[in-house]
Amino acid sequence: MRSLRLPPRRLLNKHALSARSLTVDGVTLTLGELAVRFGCSLRGDPNVAVNHVASLESADEAALAFLANAKYRPHLATTRAAAVIVDTATVAACPVAALIAKDPYLTYARVAALLHPQPQFVPGIHITAVVDSSAVIEGSAYIGAHVVIEAGVRIGERTMIGPGCVVGRDVTIGADTRLLAKVSVLDRTVIGDRCVLNPGAVLGSEGFGFAPDKQGWVKVPQLGGVRIGNDVEIGANTTIDRGAIGDTVIEDGVKLDNQIQIAHNVRIGAHTAIAACTGVSGSTTIGKRCMIAGQVGIAGHLSICDNVIVTGKTMVSASIREPGMYSGSLHAEEARKFRRNAARFAQLDELAKELRRLIGKKQKLGGNE
Amino acid sequence: MRSLRLPPRRLLNKHALSARSLTVDGVTLTLGELAVRFGCSLRGDPNVAVNHVASLESADEAALAFLANAKYRPHLATTRAAAVIVDTATVAACPVAALIAKDPYLTYARVAALLHPQPQFVPGIHITAVVDSSAVIEGSAYIGAHVVIEAGVRIGERTMIGPGCVVGRDVTIGADTRLLAKVSVLDRTVIGDRCVLNPGAVLGSEGFGFAPDKQGWVKVPQLGGVRIGNDVEIGANTTIDRGAIGDTVIEDGVKLDNQIQIAHNVRIGAHTAIAACTGVSGSTTIGKRCMIAGQVGIAGHLSICDNVIVTGKTMVSASIREPGMYSGSLHAEEARKFRRNAARFAQLDELAKELRRLIGKKQKLGGNE
Amino acid sequence: MRSLRLPPRRLLNKHALSARSLTVDGVTLTLGELAVRFGCSLRGDPNVAVNHVASLESADEAALAFLANAKYRPHLATTRAAAVIVDTATVAACPVAALIAKDPYLTYARVAALLHPQPQFVPGIHITAVVDSSAVIEGSAYIGAHVVIEAGVRIGERTMIGPGCVVGRDVTIGADTRLLAKVSVLDRTVIGDRCVLNPGAVLGSEGFGFAPDKQGWVKVPQLGGVRIGNDVEIGANTTIDRGAIGDTVIEDGVKLDNQIQIAHNVRIGAHTAIAACTGVSGSTTIGKRCMIAGQVGIAGHLSICDNVIVTGKTMVSASIREPGMYSGSLHAEEARKFRRNAARFAQLDELAKELRRLIGKKQKLGGNE
Repeated sequence: MRSLRLPPRRLLNKHALSARSLTVDGVTLTLGELAVRFGCSLRGDPNVAVNHVASLESADEAALAFLANAKYRPHLATTRAAAVIVDTATVAACPVAALIAKDPYLTYARVAALLHPQPQFVPGIHITAVVDSSAVIEGSAYIGAHVVIEAGVRIGERTMIGPGCVVGRDVTIGADTRLLAKVSVLDRTVIGDRCVLNPGAVLGSEGFGFAPDKQGWVKVPQLGGVRIGNDVEIGANTTIDRGAIGDTVIEDGVKLDNQIQIAHNVRIGAHTAIAACTGVSGSTTIGKRCMIAGQVGIAGHLSICDNVIVTGKTMVSASIREPGMYSGSLHAEEARKFRRNAARFAQLDELAKELRRLIGKKQKLGGNE
Repeated sequence: MRSLRLPPRRLLNKHALSARSLTVDGVTLTLGELAVRFGCSLRGDPNVAVNHVASLESADEAALAFLANAKYRPHLATTRAAAVIVDTATVAACPVAALIAKDPYLTYARVAALLHPQPQFVPGIHITAVVDSSAVIEGSAYIGAHVVIEAGVRIGERTMIGPGCVVGRDVTIGADTRLLAKVSVLDRTVIGDRCVLNPGAVLGSEGFGFAPDKQGWVKVPQLGGVRIGNDVEIGANTTIDRGAIGDTVIEDGVKLDNQIQIAHNVRIGAHTAIAACTGVSGSTTIGKRCMIAGQVGIAGHLSICDNVIVTGKTMVSASIREPGMYSGSLHAEEARKFRRNAARFAQLDELAKELRRLIGKKQKLGGNE
Repeated sequence: MRSLRLPPRRLLNKHALSARSLTVDGVTLTLGELAVRFGCSLRGDPNVAVNHVASLESADEAALAFLANAKYRPHLATTRAAAVIVDTATVAACPVAALIAKDPYLTYARVAALLHPQPQFVPGIHITAVVDSSAVIEGSAYIGAHVVIEAGVRIGERTMIGPGCVVGRDVTIGADTRLLAKVSVLDRTVIGDRCVLNPGAVLGSEGFGFAPDKQGWVKVPQLGGVRIGNDVEIGANTTIDRGAIGDTVIEDGVKLDNQIQIAHNVRIGAHTAIAACTGVSGSTTIGKRCMIAGQVGIAGHLSICDNVIVTGKTMVSASIREPGMYSGSLHAEEARKFRRNAARFAQLDELAKELRRLIGKKQKLGGNE
């Protein structure tokens, strides 16, 4: 990593460039080029060009659509897309050109990224950014308006620190990472390459550690840090506390949705994905390639093994040692019906005892049959 | 909309006006004026004046109080308010003057708004705001300290962008809307008239879309936007993701409390109200005039019809086709009792089978009676 | 409180000090000094010095470790720490010097705070901060980069307002309080001494109050404030709404974790601790010294007495009058098993009726035994 300090002339002039200067180059490709590039079979004219993706319903004749969820199959017959990414089972029903893929959603993800590249920014440091003179910022990086960069920070190549972010002392951020806006990264946090942090995310807040005393609570100093691997995405307003002693660790490829809470000293294994509003309590370890749905609660000091799926709103209160799917939440019913059943739940132990007594008697009685 | 560009002289001088300059004019009205204006019957002296609202307990002789929740009725007898807004059933118990309304809470809401008008701001752009030269900001609008307004933004008449907000590229915000502070509105979001956005709200964050691949997750580009209607309120730290393809839509009059998560491509129908900490998963459609309580979870790709009520902490995992009230959460009990019942829940299928076996035998046996 | 206005020369120069200037003095103490200071028995050489705390696993010979959770006892035998804080039951198993304490975790908290003092900041107002000329800021306070301080604000001695915070009109903040970064404190909020507010916390957002009308919802003006006592900690992205009439009140010593939602007119009693993602609905009162776990939901207009413990993900829908522990959530099970039991839950009222019918018949039948 070339670690040049930015000369003053690289400061972006406020009046010449009052916010981010972005350029997006349109991309146009033929179906033939797409088929070759993504290893699809093509049914249709390879010279037809597309320049954007769209849904089956809204697509026009320059658009590429896809079908990955059977729910949207009714829209296939009427689509006006130039072509649709489908699997072999669906191609016969496709009324327009078809790019045939084993996994249409995955192929769609890749084609969409190609047709809709990230806008490119002009590197530089906005004149309103406050950057400590000891920070080392690569020349290809962008530091936005009203950003604060404290002492000892290192920012890698082509990384974008969007408007209003705060980057605390001795933070290290890798290359090609994007902090979209108003992200708080507190002291000593380490963030890898190619990460995306959405607005309002907080990394390195103080963990919730207090020892009870007669007079109330005594704060336990939160001395650890936060380490984020490569290719991690962090949703809007998600919070990740620093460790109490030692670090909170998010491994490579982890995807965290919005409003997730990760407590101190949690470790989340590589390529695990967690949906919105889930909370993970302190010192719990989650394995690799897990999928945790939304509003799940995971208690502290647990160990969840690799390849675990937890369905929405489940409370995980014990370690999970076997891969598989785990559930724990009841589902909505018409309210009066639910309340009647919930009232019986409150009698459940008593009902079970009555049943067992009855079975006992019955077995005696049954002996008389 | 007159779309004048702001001449430089409208920049607010930092030292003359370092933050918002607000004025609030006190409002004093007589009970007679209030009765006429709001269509109430008055029991008492029409010339008595009030200048503020207060609770029954804290009211003084210049205050107007109200009684709408039976829980607070015990405070009526001892109130020192000038007058109380009551309904016909309660007026006899009111020891002071009474404004008699069909819906005391609704009348209270309107009277309070009249007696306590929003502070008026002095229009202008704070000198520390970073405003792209291509942005079009109405002359009656206010842009606060340390705000960032990117290229192509349009801000309507009398709209207030409070301190520390970020407004991304090509965002459109209507008239009379207030972003209180530190709101993030990302690229291409559209916000209507008379909206209120509380601090920390994030609109247009990247939706949570990833396609599984052998190596991990491939990001699905999030290409859509967010459209917010008129008269929408959005709570503190609530997050609304941009659509994957097509937009996430919040229709007119929707009220969202704090810390709500709205995923990509959700649509919320007009006048629906959602309480705090609720999460709505991707591509779900919620109808009009629904009331969703707090901490509710709604799964993805569902359809909830109009006029549905969902009670607190319910998990909605299937579409709802009939208006009505829906529930799904158990309630707190003394812990040992709850745990005994929860242990029986884990045996419930077995218990039910035992019961059915017993009924089967019994019926055979009963044949002998 | 000396209430001097800051002379212009106290503005920190942007280029001389672009962000916070912090100093941390290392602290080294002998085991003997620690034993005397914290009232521990010492087993080992009183002249051995330590200069930091560490976990049993990562400790080196200058580190002090502790053992408070039996789960970590296996690491005791192999620790390389200079000494370990243990209780009398564990001291025999400690292979290195031991500081013997009645409550090792509490003693650890105090020792750690002594060995790792908060970094000291250089008082002053960053040159990019926007501070209204009517604000009164103690000379020992620090106001960070891109902070906005509105009219009528008072900031106490040695208080730190970290980068990017917004402090609204007529807010009062006491002494020795730290707003770490990007905290929003809206108009008229009062915060006591020695508080810690983590990034993204919002105090004084508008409560969620709307009266239903034929045309939709009519906003109920939110006219109250927020009052925070002394020694309160508020987690990242936690939100506390202002009262509708009267204030929302957080009493002394309350500890709130991340992403908690406190609605309007809630009162939380002294020394109550609440874990992450919990929501408390409007006008509910929680007593003193309660412990509320994570993702708990508490309905509105309730009263929870002192010394109540609520376990994770519980829905509290009625007032609690007796101290004790309360629960309400089921726990994760293997998904197919859980679903079978949940299907039976949906039949529970019917099953209970069948059981009762059977018991009725049985008793008749039993009469024949």
